[in-house]
Amino acid sequence: MTLPTRSYAAQSATTPLAPFQFERRDPRSDDVVIDILYCGVCHSDIHQARNEWGGSVFPMVPGHEIVGRVSAVGKDVTQFKVGDTVGVGCLVDSCQHCASCNAGLEQYCEEGGTWTYNAKDRRDGTATQGGYSERIVVSDKFVVSISEKLDLKAAAPLLCAGITTWSPLRHWNVGKGSKVAVIGLGGLGHMGLKFAKAMGADVTLFTRSPGKEEEARRLGADHVVLSTDEKQMAAVARQFEFILDTVPNPHDLNPYLNTLALNGTLCLVGQLQPLDPPVQAASVVLGRRSIAGSAIGGIAETQEMLDFCAEHNIVSDIEVINMQDINAAYERVVKSDVRYRFVIDMASL
Amino acid sequence: MTLPTRSYAAQSATTPLAPFQFERRDPRSDDVVIDILYCGVCHSDIHQARNEWGGSVFPMVPGHEIVGRVSAVGKDVTQFKVGDTVGVGCLVDSCQHCASCNAGLEQYCEEGGTWTYNAKDRRDGTATQGGYSERIVVSDKFVVSISEKLDLKAAAPLLCAGITTWSPLRHWNVGKGSKVAVIGLGGLGHMGLKFAKAMGADVTLFTRSPGKEEEARRLGADHVVLSTDEKQMAAVARQFEFILDTVPNPHDLNPYLNTLALNGTLCLVGQLQPLDPPVQAASVVLGRRSIAGSAIGGIAETQEMLDFCAEHNIVSDIEVINMQDINAAYERVVKSDVRYRFVIDMASL
Ligand SMILES: [Zn+2]
Ligand SMILES: [Zn+2]
Ligand SMILES: [Zn+2]
Ligand SMILES: [Zn+2]
Repeated sequence: MTLPTRSYAAQSATTPLAPFQFERRDPRSDDVVIDILYCGVCHSDIHQARNEWGGSVFPMVPGHEIVGRVSAVGKDVTQFKVGDTVGVGCLVDSCQHCASCNAGLEQYCEEGGTWTYNAKDRRDGTATQGGYSERIVVSDKFVVSISEKLDLKAAAPLLCAGITTWSPLRHWNVGKGSKVAVIGLGGLGHMGLKFAKAMGADVTLFTRSPGKEEEARRLGADHVVLSTDEKQMAAVARQFEFILDTVPNPHDLNPYLNTLALNGTLCLVGQLQPLDPPVQAASVVLGRRSIAGSAIGGIAETQEMLDFCAEHNIVSDIEVINMQDINAAYERVVKSDVRYRFVIDMASL
Repeated sequence: MTLPTRSYAAQSATTPLAPFQFERRDPRSDDVVIDILYCGVCHSDIHQARNEWGGSVFPMVPGHEIVGRVSAVGKDVTQFKVGDTVGVGCLVDSCQHCASCNAGLEQYCEEGGTWTYNAKDRRDGTATQGGYSERIVVSDKFVVSISEKLDLKAAAPLLCAGITTWSPLRHWNVGKGSKVAVIGLGGLGHMGLKFAKAMGADVTLFTRSPGKEEEARRLGADHVVLSTDEKQMAAVARQFEFILDTVPNPHDLNPYLNTLALNGTLCLVGQLQPLDPPVQAASVVLGRRSIAGSAIGGIAETQEMLDFCAEHNIVSDIEVINMQDINAAYERVVKSDVRYRFVIDMASL
């Protein structure tokens, strides 16, 4: 029996999000039914609702930073029970048999993972719909546990902004004493600062805007470098083992590459566009530096991150909004006018 | 007492190389005097003789793939004795105290290493002069041993082309069963094939020219992919753990990036120019791939490579020329018309 579900959806690329009712699937034996408490607002929600990446399918219910409470489970579900607080991120399924999936890196599934919305369910072909809704039905393999100790509304952005910064910091072995820099202080960047600091690194924020020192230090930065100031940039030449680049638009990587130490890596997590202006090969060759990239994270490492957050009491800095405020919130996200993530209180729906 | 030394030098960026006599320094206590037997011809000799990188100082005696026999040693030299066969590569000195030098990676010396020619000696400020000459005087720390078992003339290119490909293959842990590709079949590329094969890798050559299969297999390639053929490129999507890119000119990296497996690295060793056309960030982000670079190698790893070559009987494929033929050889190098390295027989001088 399908579940009538209220939501906010985009009906086209050019119309505002508006109330929409649809049916969630009759839960399968491995499904978890989650009553959604909170859903974060990710910039990629906007890109897809406005079809800025192409290929959007409407009506579309965005949202992939989902926190909720289990209201039912299929008969084969053993890991979750009614009443548990859980999360769902960017993925709701994957092939489960390729090398990436076998390594717990479902985000790199060779057959392509199934996105939480704007995708097709790989078993029945129906459209997946996201977290701007009262409930979601998800295979238990793609559900993660969230500790009740955490502020649940502020935990929602961990499911995308959090894991997107956590995964590369872990993959490149950031730890005690690592010299790490984060480029950009937004939804991703502020989580990068918190995680890198909690992992024991010496953390620098690169920002183009003066006046962010106090805020950056509060979030975990030990140092702040104004990237528009050539003197400040020269002072950190060859300093960093790892740079987490969270900037969402094309930008010149070359000044940052020069701040990497020998064998250092600059990792892109915020942009998918061409690297323009072009990267100077001399900078990577003469310093044995790397330019890398990383996409969200796998399910196991998302759980690992959430457990770390519970232990270290780490959540996002958020502004709570009502569902009805979503279109105004989108405008503010586009202008980077949010500290640092909007989260929808689903009780408002 | 300085040593009168015959050579071939560029007197300006626009005149052919011609005979030139100059004085090698009075050997210092740590110096090794080497009678040069053979010197390889590297494309960077041409770039510098023609001032294509700027900053060239004339007269300039090029040459940094030097093999010779020790004819005298300073009083503090213990590692070498008269009669030893030895080599000198791209570096003749470095600061000896920075983090890179301490790690045996003198090529990344933070104060800048001293190049074998077209540089200034860091103790007395005189111009360094390279291997197109009858002898060279070099601090023992920058001299390496070469086994008499090797064909000495064919060993000369190991000092630059060899170490430039060896160092990244080792740094990125290429070994038994690694899936490795080499882009380009020239002085660097043919050494990349030999080394990767000898290390136990499964080796693919990417080439833009059909008809190189037999030659490539002889040099160590297990597979040859015509990079201009989209079908062949699609067939190797997500295949390689490591790609050694030896192409000396700007070229489109994007088709090659797509052939990297998850966590794979493409390493530039042949070019220092901007990466144009621009790299697609999506390709690195969605596959957690890296674009890296590597420059020659340190002294300790150069010795390690030469010992490996002696054990596996690896040398370069060369064409021997007389010193008087150098200007014609330069023209052929520029046209990539050499299999795969010219080596000057210094007895001809
Ligand atoms: Zn997101
Ligand atoms: Zn898969
Ligand atoms: Zn060279
Ligand atoms: Zn040094």
